[in-house]
Amino acid sequence: MNTLILGAGLVGSVMAMDLVADRGCKVTIVDASIENLARASRRAGGKVKTMRADLSDHAYLGKIVEPFDVVLGALPSRLGFAALRTMIEAKKPYCDISFMAEEALDLDAFARKRGVAAVVDCGVAPGLSNLLSGVAAMELKPCMRLDIMVGGLPVERRLPYEYKAGFSPSDVIEEYTRPARLVENGREVVKTALSEVEAVDLPGVGTLEAFNTDGLRSLIRTLKVPTMRERTMRYPGHADLMRAFRHTGLFDETPIAVKTADGGTAMVRPLDLTSRLLFPKWSYTEGEEDLTVMRIEAEGMLKKKSVLLRWDLLDRYDRKTGATSMGRTTAFPCTIVARLLAKGKIRQRGVLPPEKLVAEKGLVEHMMSELTKRGVTIRAERIELA
Amino acid sequence: MNTLILGAGLVGSVMAMDLVADRGCKVTIVDASIENLARASRRAGGKVKTMRADLSDHAYLGKIVEPFDVVLGALPSRLGFAALRTMIEAKKPYCDISFMAEEALDLDAFARKRGVAAVVDCGVAPGLSNLLSGVAAMELKPCMRLDIMVGGLPVERRLPYEYKAGFSPSDVIEEYTRPARLVENGREVVKTALSEVEAVDLPGVGTLEAFNTDGLRSLIRTLKVPTMRERTMRYPGHADLMRAFRHTGLFDETPIAVKTADGGTAMVRPLDLTSRLLFPKWSYTEGEEDLTVMRIEAEGMLKKKSVLLRWDLLDRYDRKTGATSMGRTTAFPCTIVARLLAKGKIRQRGVLPPEKLVAEKGLVEHMMSELTKRGVTIRAERIELA
Repeated sequence: MNTLILGAGLVGSVMAMDLVADRGCKVTIVDASIENLARASRRAGGKVKTMRADLSDHAYLGKIVEPFDVVLGALPSRLGFAALRTMIEAKKPYCDISFMAEEALDLDAFARKRGVAAVVDCGVAPGLSNLLSGVAAMELKPCMRLDIMVGGLPVERRLPYEYKAGFSPSDVIEEYTRPARLVENGREVVKTALSEVEAVDLPGVGTLEAFNTDGLRSLIRTLKVPTMRERTMRYPGHADLMRAFRHTGLFDETPIAVKTADGGTAMVRPLDLTSRLLFPKWSYTEGEEDLTVMRIEAEGMLKKKSVLLRWDLLDRYDRKTGATSMGRTTAFPCTIVARLLAKGKIRQRGVLPPEKLVAEKGLVEHMMSELTKRGVTIRAERIELA
Repeated sequence: MNTLILGAGLVGSVMAMDLVADRGCKVTIVDASIENLARASRRAGGKVKTMRADLSDHAYLGKIVEPFDVVLGALPSRLGFAALRTMIEAKKPYCDISFMAEEALDLDAFARKRGVAAVVDCGVAPGLSNLLSGVAAMELKPCMRLDIMVGGLPVERRLPYEYKAGFSPSDVIEEYTRPARLVENGREVVKTALSEVEAVDLPGVGTLEAFNTDGLRSLIRTLKVPTMRERTMRYPGHADLMRAFRHTGLFDETPIAVKTADGGTAMVRPLDLTSRLLFPKWSYTEGEEDLTVMRIEAEGMLKKKSVLLRWDLLDRYDRKTGATSMGRTTAFPCTIVARLLAKGKIRQRGVLPPEKLVAEKGLVEHMMSELTKRGVTIRAERIELA
């Protein structure tokens, strides 16, 4: 098996580490940053081929993919959509975690026409959350409510934020500002991000807070469940602080006139200054431990009984490999699906968010057992409701 | 009596209103802003003479003060020290609330030499707080502990700040950043502003929080009390939020490079951007009600008994006149003392912070009764300690 990974960041490097463990799996990783490539190579025990290239150069990417059986996308969100289109054009099986802002399903018809399977949003959430939502929608007849809660958090809680960003901090702030689309009474409704803050007790973690964010993505279009929402989880208090920042205008993207040090005036987007100040404080230091927590709840009818299905994931930083939990839980679903793509074990064609993969026979069980092998366990519960 | 008020802002306009109520008291008010002068004139029922002038033009101020019996200073803090020196040079009795950053007592010798009485920091806190601290230090033998707590707050509490600024918002932020000098074990110690946040229950207000700010000012030099601190009070939660802003670097005065809207880069002081965003949100709207709360506690020996002296002030916005509580409680101590100065009833010469005024016979009683006439009541308690 010959694999190509686009992006050697926190997630791409863990993908490389995971793939080189397979006997006979050749891994090439491409990135613009020499530092990123060096770290990825180090993590993969030197068993990975590195290529330095500009990941926004689609023509180049389209050219180099030819020899590979499958391509994995671990790109910054702003590069995700273009890379997806390039892979479809190149008729290359593709599995991606890039969290693009664009609507990936808009390329579905194009991908079907090209006969390509491109799995998108294939990380933890979106990713495993979609797959398990798909399971719930399939098992429950009908599924009446779907609730996804997810968070990546530092183990060491330090005020005032009690938070660090396991991925791009600017994507985190976008989560705090972009209106959250959810489904109520069968209709799409829009709520303010960071709204409806609620305390949630989770085994092994304690009390967190959950609030609305715009994370349902493809599920709004693919599942017919009358009540659906996705929420982000943080240590309690974080949402209030971020709401105060937002209320003050610190996340605004409209430029305002500000005095400059030389006595002049400049038009500055408040978000740019806030990011400059906040991002260093939100960065994990080398070896700093994180955890990932996800809970999915689905309510509906199963064999004429009203039941609640619940899945709990709690994953921690890997001290042995230095892989962050956010890297692990995001990379593994993608590498597991990529292997299936390379081996031709995904039958559907088109742009496939993970909830579509429940139609692939044995895939869910395979995913669970492969995750367990990697130390990522998901506890499933079935509770009969009164 | 012929009086001159420097500054027609929130406080100056209330001073004018108060002085014109005296039969035979002529009042002139000077300011650079026509709007400020118009409001002051309106509040004083048109009975005030207005002059438009640049308050930083000391030569001009020195010239115009000649005909006046007393001058009242209600200037922005940055203009306070220069105005004080100008009044001393002009040998003019002066009473000031300008909250200058400079050390007013540095001009004490000069003022004595010129034979002038210049009362400084003569508002509510500093001001009444100094006077009552002086009372405590005089009555208790010895006075072992002095605790001043003060806050100006909006009546309507609105998240996230539950705060509006009754005076210059930049002076408020300076309170949150300037290290707090206090006295412990007879020594001056420095603590971080916004530190040691403690809940305090106050009659008529409920629970507030009190935290260290740099408000002792002259008391550190004038009183020999081994434990002294000044704290600012806010509705609970405000300090944590301001600490988070400060921790993020939003109050920093060191310029950092920020992207500009036109694709360039500018060096910007984070504080300048934060102020631009925060100040409109912290401004009282016309008619918005505020309150002022102050508690002073002093512990020591009185007639061989260990006692606690406590003074509580709670003042509210005046719906009849539209005068803010912060304006009222700051202006009245100054107008009351200014009248005494004009009538030659202050015997001491030099730069006089209010704690020095306890040596003037009958002054404290006069102050209390005059404040009561204006609806500002201070409740005094004497509690015997076990």
